[in-house]
Amino acid sequence: MSQLCVHALSMSIDGYVAGPDQRLEHPLGVGGERLHEWVLETHTGREMIIGESGGTTGVDDAVIAAGFENIGATIMGRNMFGPVRGPWAPVAGEEWRGWWGDEPVYHHPVFVLTHHAHDPIVMEGGTTFHFVTDGIESALDQARSAAGTKDIRLGGGAETVREYVRAGLVDDLRIAISPTLLGAGERLFDDLGDALDRYELASVTPGEGATHVRITRR
Amino acid sequence: MSQLCVHALSMSIDGYVAGPDQRLEHPLGVGGERLHEWVLETHTGREMIIGESGGTTGVDDAVIAAGFENIGATIMGRNMFGPVRGPWAPVAGEEWRGWWGDEPVYHHPVFVLTHHAHDPIVMEGGTTFHFVTDGIESALDQARSAAGTKDIRLGGGAETVREYVRAGLVDDLRIAISPTLLGAGERLFDDLGDALDRYELASVTPGEGATHVRITRR
Repeated sequence: MSQLCVHALSMSIDGYVAGPDQRLEHPLGVGGERLHEWVLETHTGREMIIGESGGTTGVDDAVIAAGFENIGATIMGRNMFGPVRGPWAPVAGEEWRGWWGDEPVYHHPVFVLTHHAHDPIVMEGGTTFHFVTDGIESALDQARSAAGTKDIRLGGGAETVREYVRAGLVDDLRIAISPTLLGAGERLFDDLGDALDRYELASVTPGEGATHVRITRR
Repeated sequence: MSQLCVHALSMSIDGYVAGPDQRLEHPLGVGGERLHEWVLETHTGREMIIGESGGTTGVDDAVIAAGFENIGATIMGRNMFGPVRGPWAPVAGEEWRGWWGDEPVYHHPVFVLTHHAHDPIVMEGGTTFHFVTDGIESALDQARSAAGTKDIRLGGGAETVREYVRAGLVDDLRIAISPTLLGAGERLFDDLGDALDRYELASVTPGEGATHVRITRR
């Protein structure tokens, strides 16, 4: 069966996966972009995010590339999809269609968790955003159907990852400890109860710009 | 001037520096001993803690050894000194004299922060426990006088380290990210307000058994 995997979730030394005060001007929270600097040093990260060549081709690059291999569907929380909270509303006069331009990096169905129904949004290049209002298990079922034999990538934000970990539904949680201190923000390891009892640390691997931690279900 | 340094403070991947429910039977909290397994793999750690030879002599060993070089005094919280809370009371019918046997590993003056006065306790090998009731700055002043030109090591526990970081008094905070998940316990990076604004990440160095992080005052 396909696996539900979190890939390259950047976490600061002090445990934050986003800065505080996330909004349109700070999609990653204040200072949150520092979490991802290591990604822009890699060949795959440069190509995917800023469309430039060059970059490293070592451990970090392999970690980023793995997050795009054999993935048939993505699940994300609404806070990762966009800055709108509460009922859907235009942003700067237009329907919000994600942070990723006309042709998002996904190229497969993306299931966005929300409490507010919304028609699917078909983007260029194979990405369609589907909006799921009946919970994380429904989103996972729909993602499994869409992914077929491929795996499912669980994006963010922090609360969405925590919800799936609490429910024991994440198979493979891959974190990148990023060499920065944020001082405040959204924690990954918070309010998990005893959910981690079902998980074990599989590996810790130093990369060129981040330290890669893999946590798998027992 | 001598520096106030935290050395080899072991922190789990999920951010805990001690397990939950610290008491006589669990001085490091439940599961807390897992934080320190990497120490027992090193030459210096084996020799100091269990009196056995062997062990690694690489990065991890150098980190442990550095915590005993050029140190003229140690400061610790009362929860690190022992399991007694509130007014001093015997443990198993005897005065509590620390976790470290008749000849503790310190071999210099140790200043224990407490709200409850206690006469100094002179141990074998040069360690004397002094009990400081008038706050962290007084303890630091006394430790500076005792240390002379040498540095001062700040032990634990978590709350004591946080207090000194909040006050901006720690010069060099060296953490070892230990390859384990605790799921619960005492966090290091918690309730620090904006104290980390005064600090910067100096280095992240992979060791054989832990990842070493050094945070210094700007």
